[in-house]
Amino acid sequence: MRTPLERFYPLIPAGGVGSRLWPLSRAVEPKFLLDLTGTGSSLLRATYDRLVDLATDGVMVITGEAHANAVTQQLRELRGSDLVLEPSPRDSAAAIGLASAILYQRDPEAIIGSFAADHVIDPVEDFQAVVREAIAAAATGKVVTIGIEPTEPSTAFGYIKASKSLGAKDAPHALAVEEFVEKPDAQTASAYLATGDYTWNAGMFVAPAQLMLKHIEANEPELYAGIMQIAGAWDTPERDATMNRVWDTLPKTAIDYAVAEPAAAAGDVAMVPGSFSWDDVGDFDAVARLNIEKTGDDLFVLGDKNNVITEDSTGIIVNNTHRKISVIGISDVVIVDTADALLVTVRDDAQSVKNTVAKLKEQGLNNLL
Amino acid sequence: MRTPLERFYPLIPAGGVGSRLWPLSRAVEPKFLLDLTGTGSSLLRATYDRLVDLATDGVMVITGEAHANAVTQQLRELRGSDLVLEPSPRDSAAAIGLASAILYQRDPEAIIGSFAADHVIDPVEDFQAVVREAIAAAATGKVVTIGIEPTEPSTAFGYIKASKSLGAKDAPHALAVEEFVEKPDAQTASAYLATGDYTWNAGMFVAPAQLMLKHIEANEPELYAGIMQIAGAWDTPERDATMNRVWDTLPKTAIDYAVAEPAAAAGDVAMVPGSFSWDDVGDFDAVARLNIEKTGDDLFVLGDKNNVITEDSTGIIVNNTHRKISVIGISDVVIVDTADALLVTVRDDAQSVKNTVAKLKEQGLNNLL
Repeated sequence: MRTPLERFYPLIPAGGVGSRLWPLSRAVEPKFLLDLTGTGSSLLRATYDRLVDLATDGVMVITGEAHANAVTQQLRELRGSDLVLEPSPRDSAAAIGLASAILYQRDPEAIIGSFAADHVIDPVEDFQAVVREAIAAAATGKVVTIGIEPTEPSTAFGYIKASKSLGAKDAPHALAVEEFVEKPDAQTASAYLATGDYTWNAGMFVAPAQLMLKHIEANEPELYAGIMQIAGAWDTPERDATMNRVWDTLPKTAIDYAVAEPAAAAGDVAMVPGSFSWDDVGDFDAVARLNIEKTGDDLFVLGDKNNVITEDSTGIIVNNTHRKISVIGISDVVIVDTADALLVTVRDDAQSVKNTVAKLKEQGLNNLL
Repeated sequence: MRTPLERFYPLIPAGGVGSRLWPLSRAVEPKFLLDLTGTGSSLLRATYDRLVDLATDGVMVITGEAHANAVTQQLRELRGSDLVLEPSPRDSAAAIGLASAILYQRDPEAIIGSFAADHVIDPVEDFQAVVREAIAAAATGKVVTIGIEPTEPSTAFGYIKASKSLGAKDAPHALAVEEFVEKPDAQTASAYLATGDYTWNAGMFVAPAQLMLKHIEANEPELYAGIMQIAGAWDTPERDATMNRVWDTLPKTAIDYAVAEPAAAAGDVAMVPGSFSWDDVGDFDAVARLNIEKTGDDLFVLGDKNNVITEDSTGIIVNNTHRKISVIGISDVVIVDTADALLVTVRDDAQSVKNTVAKLKEQGLNNLL
């Protein structure tokens, strides 16, 4: 008889460009491939490293075909059979659903865990303890989300409303989930915080593969049929042919609609609060905050530190060009210097980078995106 | 009998890096070779164009050997015999003294006029009218400076104290000069302004070549002997050999000490007030001011305008790289983007660019200077 942890298979859907991190993050080198904390590890590599210790038999990565080389360079130990390359983007239900189906084919008692490739989490030990609880709770037949304890009434995230203790063995902090709610307005977010019942939905969840597939079958039967067909061929010589034939026919929908929300309505969802610090590094203000907190310096240089000269300045400088950069007299500056594009702004305006990206799109300058 | 204007020979000492305009201005491409106003003309070319209409027989240019190609590219009509290439920097008395000596050899009645290569002057017609007055006054046997009417109690310039009218024919505004004074402190500068007797010394002056040489002979006999020797060989096949043999032996001193100050003490100096607008474009704040005044826009792009996207920003952006530049939410910004160096600052800190240059010098990074 195996423990729940002995049946745990993490998977990492690695997608999304992170366009508010332009010009550092690009379609050809999106956020998850970048080192945003100066550690030498990309966000993907760090996500992999957080999970591999918990894994029964490796970590599965799902990403776009365009990133095959970059991902295998960063994760040299990744087996080919654990890398799902999407011929085209079909949204999260297809990606996570297919991975769940493959793992279910390999091990019908598999407990899968899905974790975004582009978040920063610290400390790793606390994260792993929470995931272990989530695995234990999932083993009772639940889709278990990890809820991030809110530090502010953010309108950038969906929320999870939890209530009473689940009472699951080895999962003392697990709570039953009443519902998922979409990104609220500021007033609603403040009200959520006041109750103490709401946590941020960071899209991390752990569940029996069988339970995932049950909900997908019920809610998206066409998607279910397709992913089961691909999964059946996955560990055979028919893998590529089947993938190429079936993938592009899969319905596009989010895992929230295919699994999380209907499961919550059916009383199948639990939540373990994430007591670690978590950041989805949505913009350069977040990149600055994370690194300035970590280093204690009020000016952080990512990239070529030796070629930066500063005077009376704070903020973040990304030097990816090895050019000499001199910055004088700007507080909370954000400078991102890349081979073909330069961003200069301040931390308070970091969100507005999306306007520049929108303009470049309008102008059809796809080579810069 | 020739008029004074028919004996007028302008000369342009083109030197100085303009290090507060780093990283645009470099030793290999100093300020005078740059177009700082987006007109397509460098400061040198504009200086030449202002003077050539007044010239009897061309304009003489004195510059470092390193700039021979750039200068002849910008001034294709310049005769080889009117381009004095300095094998090494020997300061302004040697440069202007030698040009005066050559012109004196060619025309003993020459009236020379010396004008820096890196100032911005507008309108040209007003400038030329003032120079014509200065020529008329010089013909009475004076070293005639052009005094810039101060717009503020600047501590960045020397001042000229003038008194009564010179009463010279065709020079109604010419005044006798009492003395030159060095750059004052702020209090002294304010006191100067209050009297109305002081103008800025912008280093522009007009004088009979013979009078220039008389003062040089009296104050710097060794310099005088050297420049006369080179000048004697200038329009002969011995030019280069003599220049190369003698130039590096010339004493290094400023024209202020060799001519202007002793001439003033001897009562030989007059001043014509410059009613035109004048700027020595000492830093990027000045570059921004000049261009913003001219265009009426509060954000000016020098260089590749098409590749700049701005939002809620004012100031100046120099785009010399054709990279895409996005600037968001910074007022009075100064961004100078070149192939190997990037400056980001604000107009109020434009003077501090010299600190960066000093650091680069300390580090021996001469390729960036």
